[in-house]
Order: sequence, then C-alpha cells, then structure tokens
Amino acid sequence: MNKDFVIVLAPDSFKESMTAKEACEAMEKGIHKVNSNITCIHVPMADGGEGTMQSLVDATEGTVYITKVKGPLGNEVSASYGITGDGLTGVLEMASASGIQLVSPETRNPLITTTYGTGQLIKACLDRGVSKLLIGIGGSATNDGGAGMVQALGGRLLDAEGNELLFGGGELGRLARIDLSGFDPRLKDVQVEVACDVTNPLCGPTGASNVFGPQKGATSDMIKQLDSNLHHYASVIKEQLGFDIIDMSGAGAAGGLGAGLVVFLNGILKKGIELVIDYTGLEEKVQQADMVWTGEGSIDFQTQYGKTPLGVAEVAKKYNKPVLAFAGRIGDQTEVLYDKGIDAIFGIMPGAASLEDALNKGQENLERTAENVARLVMLNQGS
Amino acid sequence: MNKDFVIVLAPDSFKESMTAKEACEAMEKGIHKVNSNITCIHVPMADGGEGTMQSLVDATEGTVYITKVKGPLGNEVSASYGITGDGLTGVLEMASASGIQLVSPETRNPLITTTYGTGQLIKACLDRGVSKLLIGIGGSATNDGGAGMVQALGGRLLDAEGNELLFGGGELGRLARIDLSGFDPRLKDVQVEVACDVTNPLCGPTGASNVFGPQKGATSDMIKQLDSNLHHYASVIKEQLGFDIIDMSGAGAAGGLGAGLVVFLNGILKKGIELVIDYTGLEEKVQQADMVWTGEGSIDFQTQYGKTPLGVAEVAKKYNKPVLAFAGRIGDQTEVLYDKGIDAIFGIMPGAASLEDALNKGQENLERTAENVARLVMLNQGS
Repeated sequence: MNKDFVIVLAPDSFKESMTAKEACEAMEKGIHKVNSNITCIHVPMADGGEGTMQSLVDATEGTVYITKVKGPLGNEVSASYGITGDGLTGVLEMASASGIQLVSPETRNPLITTTYGTGQLIKACLDRGVSKLLIGIGGSATNDGGAGMVQALGGRLLDAEGNELLFGGGELGRLARIDLSGFDPRLKDVQVEVACDVTNPLCGPTGASNVFGPQKGATSDMIKQLDSNLHHYASVIKEQLGFDIIDMSGAGAAGGLGAGLVVFLNGILKKGIELVIDYTGLEEKVQQADMVWTGEGSIDFQTQYGKTPLGVAEVAKKYNKPVLAFAGRIGDQTEVLYDKGIDAIFGIMPGAASLEDALNKGQENLERTAENVARLVMLNQGS
Repeated sequence: MNKDFVIVLAPDSFKESMTAKEACEAMEKGIHKVNSNITCIHVPMADGGEGTMQSLVDATEGTVYITKVKGPLGNEVSASYGITGDGLTGVLEMASASGIQLVSPETRNPLITTTYGTGQLIKACLDRGVSKLLIGIGGSATNDGGAGMVQALGGRLLDAEGNELLFGGGELGRLARIDLSGFDPRLKDVQVEVACDVTNPLCGPTGASNVFGPQKGATSDMIKQLDSNLHHYASVIKEQLGFDIIDMSGAGAAGGLGAGLVVFLNGILKKGIELVIDYTGLEEKVQQADMVWTGEGSIDFQTQYGKTPLGVAEVAKKYNKPVLAFAGRIGDQTEVLYDKGIDAIFGIMPGAASLEDALNKGQENLERTAENVARLVMLNQGS
C-alpha cells in the first residue's frame, strides 16, 4: 500500500441490531484489525425512515432529547428529537410522536388521531434555536393533513362558529377558517426539509385516505369521510392561504402531513435518501475515498427503491468508486443491484442461527465480515 | 483482465450438505456469473476422514461401488468403495464396513467387533485389478488390531489348538500362530497408503484401547483385556513376522488397524490431508493458479489441525498464492488461520436460518457467495 487507503463507511442502521453509527464502528474495528493505516470515514446513513434521526445525530455528534408530547390519541407519550452537533439543525421523525406503533390495533382510528405531538417536537427544536429542520414522516397513525401540528405551533383551525377544531381527520370537514396570527413566528426563519418517498396526492383514489387509511384502522365509510374532509381542507387552504395542494405529489404522505408541512412550514419534500446524502455531505467524502462500504440489516431487490445502499452506490458511481454492501439478511434477486452500482454484497452471518441470535450478535458478525473482506481488498492492494 | 485468470477450487465436502465436487461446481457457477473467462480447476478435496473416498473418486471421474460385507458385529451390511477414473487405485474408508455408526450404542463392544468387512472391501478392490489402495481409517467400531481384515484376506489367526480365532479384540489374547500361506498374493504388488492423523501407539496409556476404547463401548475391565490382548498380538507379530510395532506412531489408530495395515499390507501411514494432496496433484495445479479457493462445512480454530482448508493453504503458500476459504459455519478463533495461510474466510449464509435450511441450501448459498467474492476479486483485476 503506497498511500493511505481510504474507505468511506456509509451503512444504514441494521434494524433491531445496531445503529448506523454502531455499524460504522464495527466495520472500522474489522478493517483496523487488518491494517490500522486504513483511513475510515464514518458516515452513518439513513433513508428518511426509522433510524434517520439517530443516524443524523450520530453523524454530527449531536444530541438526542426525549420529551413528553401528545400521542396520536391525545394521551401523553415520550418522543425523541435530535439536535445536530453544530446546534443548527433539528431532526425528528413524526412517528416518534404520532406513529402507528403508539396506537394499539383495536384503537386505531384516523378520524381522531392527531399530529399534534409532531408539532410539539418541532416546537421543542425551535426552543433550542435551530435554523433548519429535517423531518421524517413515515409510519404515521394520522390522516389529519398536519392539522394537529399546526395547532401545536399556535395556528388555530376554527369551525363556522369560531370554535377550535378537535383532533383528527374527522374534524377537518368542519373547517371554516384558518387563523395563523398566533403561529410560531420563529418558523419564518427556519428551513424545513421533509423526507418523503411517496408521491401520492392528498385526495382521491391514490390519495392519503384511500391508500394508507386502511392500515391506520379506517373502514370504507371512514375512508370516504376522511377523503372528503381532506378535499375540504385543501379548498379552505387554497381559498385562505393561496396554496393549491390538490395535485401536489407527496401531499398525501403521512395522512396529509406532507401537505401540511409544505403549506404551513414552507417545507421542501425530498426523497429521504437524498435528504440524508445532502445533509451528511456524503458526495464530498466519497470523492476522497478509494472504496465505499455500505450496508443494511436486510438487502434484497427492494433495496433498489430508495434504500440507503443504493443511494450510496449511486453517489459512489458518479466518481467510479467501488461499492461493497454488507447485510444481516440477503434476500431474493439481489443481482439486480449489481447493475445499479453495488459491486458485491456480503452476508455477515457465521452460520445457522435464530433471528434473535443474529440480531444480538450483529456487531461482532459485521466486524468479522468486514475484517475478512478487508483482508481480501488489501491482498489486492499488495499490503 | 489481461490474461486468463485461473482459480483452483479445492474445497472439502460440506458435511450433510454437499460433496466436495458439488462445492466445486457451486463455486464455479458463481464465478462464471461474473466472468466466464475465468478458468476454474476443480480439485475436490478431503482430509482422510468421512467423504475422502467420494472426493477422490470425484476428483478422478471414477466410480463408487456398493457391496455387501460383514459389519462390525458380523452381520451383513452394505458398504462402498471407489475405483479412480484410471482404474488403478482403490479408495475405501474403513468406517463404511467397520464403522461405529453401524453399531447401535447399546450393542457397542470392541471385544467382539471386527475389521473383517474392511478386508472384504480391500479384496473387492483387488478383484477390480487395482495396483494401489488409499485407505481412510477414521471412525472405527473395532479394537482388533486389523485381525478381522487379515482373516478376510486369507490369513489365518490360530490359537494353541490350531483353531481359527473368532472375531474381535477379545480373541487376540489366544493368538498362537499366524498363518499367511493363504493370504491374498495380489497384495504383494499393491501399494497401500493409509490416511492416519493420530499418532497413538498400539498399547499402553495412550494406546488404542485406553484412548479410543471407551467411545467404542469398552468398560474399564474390557479396556484392560483389550490392551493386554494387543500387547500379546504385537509380541506374536514380532516373533513370527519380525515386525516390531510396539512403539510405532499411529499403530493405535482405528483400534490397531493402523498396525495391521503396516504389518500385513506394507501400508504407509500418512496424514490424511497429505495423502489427498499427493494423490490429487494439488501442488502442481496450484502452481498454475492466480488464486486458490477452499472451504468446508465448518471452519474454526480446529481447522488448523489437519483439516482440508489448512492443508490447501499450506500448499498454496509455498507458491505465494492467495487463499480464500468458504464455510457454512464460521466458528471461534478463526483468526489463528490467517497466520497459517488462509487470507480470508467467507460465510455463505444469507441470514438467520435453521440448520436444516442451511444444509438444504448449501449449494445456492455457496454459489451466491462465490459470485460476490469473485466480483470483488475481479474488481481488483480491472475486469
């Protein structure tokens, strides 16, 4: 090895086994067993889904905070948000405050579930002085168009009698007036990026209520009402705020929270993986690398649809860097990924094992596999 | 890739999952998915233990034959032997005819178990005109010093009254005279090599009876008798045949069959892996290779003690060829193998799975892993 060999380590988390940061550390440990002169650049990644907040906090040596907010049903829940190491960016996942996992299957009802808690998390970030917000919106229990979030941030959603709407998508049909006079003024100076991989519009057959309503507990009658209410919500917004969101791609994400973030917070919807790639500066780091390693708990043909390993590979291929991927589980048809920039995929399992065992030993398995792959890589480097 | 890249494929069998030949085929399939111009030289390997006969037959495109012989308890069993593709060499494993797996635990009794069936397998090879015999002797149920084998090949073991001894290690104390007048004359012209990894002497505290007797069902009283009988057997052999085997390393292998093969068949005891390496011409093939791939069902720190991957690595390292190993199970402390010539070890499992599933899908898992490793290897070859 004539010069320092540089590997960018850009894995996602290995779900239920290790965070992206822990995956970076395990890879580096394995690599440094082979040659401690190899430079490892850690870029804990995410794709906008679960684990995105943790990865971005870890990537910047930031801090995770836990706070009490209103859950989807209005009861108190503990939710988390992150502030990046420079203190300038708040990172949150709507699911932490308003996610489907917070509602037991028998009580799921998008007529009444609210994004209020998500608004509270945003407020908590503002209280810490951020100038930027990165928001993941997957896994919602709600269909309220982000109305609860608006209320939490000081907006008032009033019915014809001037009474504040109650929580939930079932209330939006009664919306008569939007009063933003008390809306948190700090938001004017905050740049908001939203990780959004879906392109569904707010309403209609491919809209939030019809496509995602059932998994949130909506019956077909409820879906009709929810869809009609979102139509009404959009028309009031258009009339009073001048935003036409009815045909907007992604407006239907997270029960219409996508629309709400665009309208009320001037949010920009981006693909999750692109948001993370931009924020982490992955592209610049990749340019310095001899090789790029990525990975995720499970890799299969679906990895091509916006998952981290593929996003990382696309960046790496711009600069013709080899990309190796590591996975706890290699599923079907991974060969489709070769053409999309992943040069080789290595499973980390040492043998037959239960899923529990596999999850518990993720780090040691990744470390051992990284070591062996590094041994082969370095063979070819003549070190 | 400027010139043809050559990979020697020299795996052992993956026990209960695939033969060494099948492992070679799976590796080649994976490799050729990456680049069909890579030359794969198949050398199905073995270490003298179970699977050795099959591997050597496969390595030479030979034939396996099944025949009826006397099992360890004298009852008829089906046993197999192989003739190599050139017809010149017979290959057999004593365990096929006289192995512990043929005797149920409750009937294990080395006072009466015999190697007669092993002698019958040798005779079957002679009937097919071989000039060489390769014999694996692991896994025996016997402690008869090879007496039964001698009897099957026409030798007579007589007591003081001139009566033929019955089967088993319990009879050897009565041995008075060895009559080889009827011993198969074809054996004079046959070269015999024995795969023997143990160095135990015939008798004494580290001898056949004391060390291996218990696992064959011997009680402590039986062990005393068996050990004393082998002493007597050795003294009669020394007196009548002029062979002093009492201090011979490996004489105690397979209940003294090691000694019997040396004395009666002029057998040469070799380490199993060395016997296979010599017979397969591995060394010459390795010299033509750019890289050597090996593997075994399970690889762990014990692999350093005479197992195939290590033997292959030792040959490869003479010529400074990179060695990659593949395994269904990677056990503990495999890092000791790096210093002994194995450059990297790759597990083939795609994720958490039952042992049954792992064994059933061995070939597809090895193929996929070989493909990905080849992708990485070829990256570095610039192909």
